[in-house]
Amino acid sequence: MINGSDPILLTPGPLTTSPATRQAMLRDWGSWDAAFNQMTNTICVDLLAIVSGQKDFVCVPMQGSGTFSVEAALGSLVPHEAVVLVPNNGAYCTRILKILGRLGVAAIELNLRDDEPASVERIEDMFLREPRITHVAQVHLETSAGLLNPLEDIAALCARFDKRLIVDAMSSLGALPIDVSKGGIDAVISASGKCLEGVPGMGFVIVRRSLLEASEGISRSLALDLHDQYAYMLKTSQWRFTPPTHVVAALRAALDQFIAEGGQAARGARYRGNCATLIDAMAVLGFKPFLDASVQAPVIVTFHAPRDPAYDFKRFYEAVREAGYVLYPGKLTEVETFRVGCIGAIDANEMHNAVAAIGRALNALHVRLAA
Amino acid sequence: MINGSDPILLTPGPLTTSPATRQAMLRDWGSWDAAFNQMTNTICVDLLAIVSGQKDFVCVPMQGSGTFSVEAALGSLVPHEAVVLVPNNGAYCTRILKILGRLGVAAIELNLRDDEPASVERIEDMFLREPRITHVAQVHLETSAGLLNPLEDIAALCARFDKRLIVDAMSSLGALPIDVSKGGIDAVISASGKCLEGVPGMGFVIVRRSLLEASEGISRSLALDLHDQYAYMLKTSQWRFTPPTHVVAALRAALDQFIAEGGQAARGARYRGNCATLIDAMAVLGFKPFLDASVQAPVIVTFHAPRDPAYDFKRFYEAVREAGYVLYPGKLTEVETFRVGCIGAIDANEMHNAVAAIGRALNALHVRLAA
Ligand SMILES: Cc1ncc(COP(=O)(O)O)c(C=O)c1O
Ligand SMILES: Cc1ncc(COP(=O)(O)O)c(C=O)c1O
Repeated sequence: MINGSDPILLTPGPLTTSPATRQAMLRDWGSWDAAFNQMTNTICVDLLAIVSGQKDFVCVPMQGSGTFSVEAALGSLVPHEAVVLVPNNGAYCTRILKILGRLGVAAIELNLRDDEPASVERIEDMFLREPRITHVAQVHLETSAGLLNPLEDIAALCARFDKRLIVDAMSSLGALPIDVSKGGIDAVISASGKCLEGVPGMGFVIVRRSLLEASEGISRSLALDLHDQYAYMLKTSQWRFTPPTHVVAALRAALDQFIAEGGQAARGARYRGNCATLIDAMAVLGFKPFLDASVQAPVIVTFHAPRDPAYDFKRFYEAVREAGYVLYPGKLTEVETFRVGCIGAIDANEMHNAVAAIGRALNALHVRLAA
Repeated sequence: MINGSDPILLTPGPLTTSPATRQAMLRDWGSWDAAFNQMTNTICVDLLAIVSGQKDFVCVPMQGSGTFSVEAALGSLVPHEAVVLVPNNGAYCTRILKILGRLGVAAIELNLRDDEPASVERIEDMFLREPRITHVAQVHLETSAGLLNPLEDIAALCARFDKRLIVDAMSSLGALPIDVSKGGIDAVISASGKCLEGVPGMGFVIVRRSLLEASEGISRSLALDLHDQYAYMLKTSQWRFTPPTHVVAALRAALDQFIAEGGQAARGARYRGNCATLIDAMAVLGFKPFLDASVQAPVIVTFHAPRDPAYDFKRFYEAVREAGYVLYPGKLTEVETFRVGCIGAIDANEMHNAVAAIGRALNALHVRLAA
């Protein structure tokens, strides 16, 4: 284990960070200090570069968990009279619908199965049937099952139909390619503690500058007002309210390591290696992934739970944790599953060790997998 | 300097934390993990004890900066048809008015000067003149000037008039006595990175259980829904959305040190010592505090800036920072001031050294103080 005696987190954020990232939190920073504000600025510059947004986009950091940034984007960028299409294939899409409901913004749900990606055909069909649709809120990687949605195609479709596209890229940004310079995408939301391998505590919205500048006065929340946050930062170079200084410093360190590793391409390749190793080794034990390989993102893998009545997730979780690996419960309502993340400061070696620990836990608990 | 070569922050949060608090962030925690959730639970138990709220109150932690918790409390606990009295003697009171405006809740402002505490007489007068007032939102310690408002008396008044009282105790909780068991107070808001000496990144609301339980469905925000956060935590013992795990671990360590120091009484005494040392030493240099001693809280002191035209806050700040101390700009609109915090993991020795650095900076910049 790279952490000494601490368990390795095979969870989709918080995840296992590198020692250098955690050590960046050993210092206190003043929020008024030029050096700290310069650090925030370089983070925004680097985040924009990851999605090729340097030209027409700005990056606005936001305190809180990822959901706070999702609500900030929806509440600040979507006019009250808009109609938002939400292709729904999991819990994070459902959460977007819930947020829109709270905001009083009309939403149209495109109901999909947990294992069914949003398709351009189905979305185009909705555009034709419901011309009042003005926006699409699309989860890039539905972490509930680990499902990849075809963002590039959806962006091209939105560009063609002139719909505003807001992307929840919480668990994909940094690991999977996102290119806003190709057009079609208006805002991308993610957070510090996912594939960028920082610690949790802040999110950010990368948004088309012209859209943000036209969005003054939309937000009914003060704390989650993205335009206000942006305008204040532009004027003062400071965060509007106290920033999570240590989380920011950790993200700076994490981004340095991200760049040194080779950026999104290298990070994506490492995660693909982790994911393939995991799925192959789990197959040897008899575990089957819930998703078809063609739609499986290399970030988190949902496995069918053993059918053996001796299986109980809590006891299984505890036994694997004892061995030094933290698994994640399933988030599907209809089938019993558990999840294993392949992101964080871990490599294929850790995946092998984790699967070995899973095998030993099953043995110890006398759980058999149906052949 | 206790931090080696890092500057000491004389700012009202973020502030200088202890090495033990920062070292608590060297570990990653899973958000589903029982050990982590137990840590959150003990934090809530300890926070309740600080304000004597064990019997009838609950503590709900909230991601984000302190303002996020203020908005969460106002947006989740105050019904849309309420009328809120806001005694206003500074920027944080004005922020409450702004939040209420965004929420569409009617507010009545009691206008006070920056150096004038909210008095029971003025508030009672407002209650008599405006019987439609249902709530009072009171900042305990107005950090803008460092002004202490008479919370105990205001609470007794609110109890007598049966008004709900919501207290922003951001920069006072932990340092000044707050006792909700005496009645009159319905909710108290504070954050991790102030007088508890944790790092910034989360806040919390300590709220009367019966009030919170009756508040389901009020919040129009999902992220800032205090009732939802509470209900989910009660059911699952987990945070609703990804918690800032490292910030939580730092707060746990900071609370351990708070208790070891002797709790609020001992912390308050240390800060009073810091404050007296600061004011006395600054007086020797010729600096006068903006506030009268009778209303000066021992947390942050506002000083009149030198009248000498050679004085420029930015250059002064830089020179003092070079010497290892980070000051804070003034937040008053009418008089030129700067602020020096006396909170954080610092003692009277640091205050002496800081004032010596201030004296040397003035000399180096050829700034004279009028005698
Ligand atoms: C796709 C997606 N959206 C939103 C979120 C919510 O983020 P948070 O838990 O930080 O609020 C997550 C969290 O894992 C996610 O995976
Ligand atoms: C009295 C008071 N209220 C609210 C806040 C806002 O807290 P934050 O900056 O963490 O949002 C502060 C910050 O110093 C404060 O002193």
